Amino acid sequence: MDERFEKQLAFALEIDKEKNVLRQTHLSGHGRREDDAEHAWHMAVMAYLLKEYANEKIDISRVVMMCLVHDLVEIDAGDTYAYDEEGKKTQRDREEKAADKIFGLLPQDQAEEFRGLFEEFDACETPEARYAHTMDNLQPLLLNDSNDGGDWMEHDVSFSEIWKRQSLSALGSEKIGCYINERLEENVKEGHIREDRKK
Amino acid sequence: MDERFEKQLAFALEIDKEKNVLRQTHLSGHGRREDDAEHAWHMAVMAYLLKEYANEKIDISRVVMMCLVHDLVEIDAGDTYAYDEEGKKTQRDREEKAADKIFGLLPQDQAEEFRGLFEEFDACETPEARYAHTMDNLQPLLLNDSNDGGDWMEHDVSFSEIWKRQSLSALGSEKIGCYINERLEENVKEGHIREDRKK
Repeated sequence: MDERFEKQLAFALEIDKEKNVLRQTHLSGHGRREDDAEHAWHMAVMAYLLKEYANEKIDISRVVMMCLVHDLVEIDAGDTYAYDEEGKKTQRDREEKAADKIFGLLPQDQAEEFRGLFEEFDACETPEARYAHTMDNLQPLLLNDSNDGGDWMEHDVSFSEIWKRQSLSALGSEKIGCYINERLEENVKEGHIREDRKK
Repeated sequence: MDERFEKQLAFALEIDKEKNVLRQTHLSGHGRREDDAEHAWHMAVMAYLLKEYANEKIDISRVVMMCLVHDLVEIDAGDTYAYDEEGKKTQRDREEKAADKIFGLLPQDQAEEFRGLFEEFDACETPEARYAHTMDNLQPLLLNDSNDGGDWMEHDVSFSEIWKRQSLSALGSEKIGCYINERLEENVKEGHIREDRKK
């Protein structure tokens, strides 16, 4: 077997481990926690499904690939919960090292291409990355909302903590950002999200 | 909320159930069985990774979407193991009904588009569908091979049964078909696959 093909297959096998990285979000119906591979799949399908709502002209194929590979670094860096402020302090450093490792398995040209997709997502400075981030926010919200906010309640998350992240959803899609805002307000009203805004 | 967006979100939530459809394949490292969403994600990334080996000119974005949605019907029809001859007798009928149900959740234009991707995959008559099928075969082989053929042994599968399916892998990619053949022969030699060919 030639070296290039061997490297590609080693990468293909290594990424199987993403299925063992658990997130805090639970599947709809109060099931088990979902894993990164399931999340990436769900996000990618949703990105395609909802592409008409992107604020800017986007290359949807690039968005889909970004969704599919954006969490590969978590195989070694682990999942950092969106509201874990301690974990977030070391997140960039852990993910840089993990990126060297996982993308380093690939032939040079593909290492650059795949890492490029990850870094573009991470930097969130292109229309594609902004819309992919909206999906990264909408997908767990959809599940959590369907579960009466169980994940927010389990972690006692406040509106301000959620809003710091979710307010950015409108950068990728005004319509989806607006929907997310509505659902968050409804969950505050129902006591699923801790209200911490001054009246 | 307008009806179109409502339908799209209902579909996005419904497909969460694909994460509960278990396959016979085990994760690498003799772990638990994988589910359809993980399989679809893995296949989609592998399709992109190995696209240079497709026999024919392909629209890789279409292949990726085909990989991502090809098993949605299994939410209602269930997974049919590749070597379950009884199950395969009713598979088409079960999957047709399931397709009506899952794609029926979508706005008409998207119902047609998503169902079109599924039916194109299923018919396996385009370059994209042939290559996607090669991925559908390679992905579980890669895992099973890394697990010393545990899934083949558990189901006492013979070479002829596997070959009936895997010989088609070369239609999408000669190189990958050749690799699969080599790995199957090696697994026969190691006693992981039952030899049933006449000498």
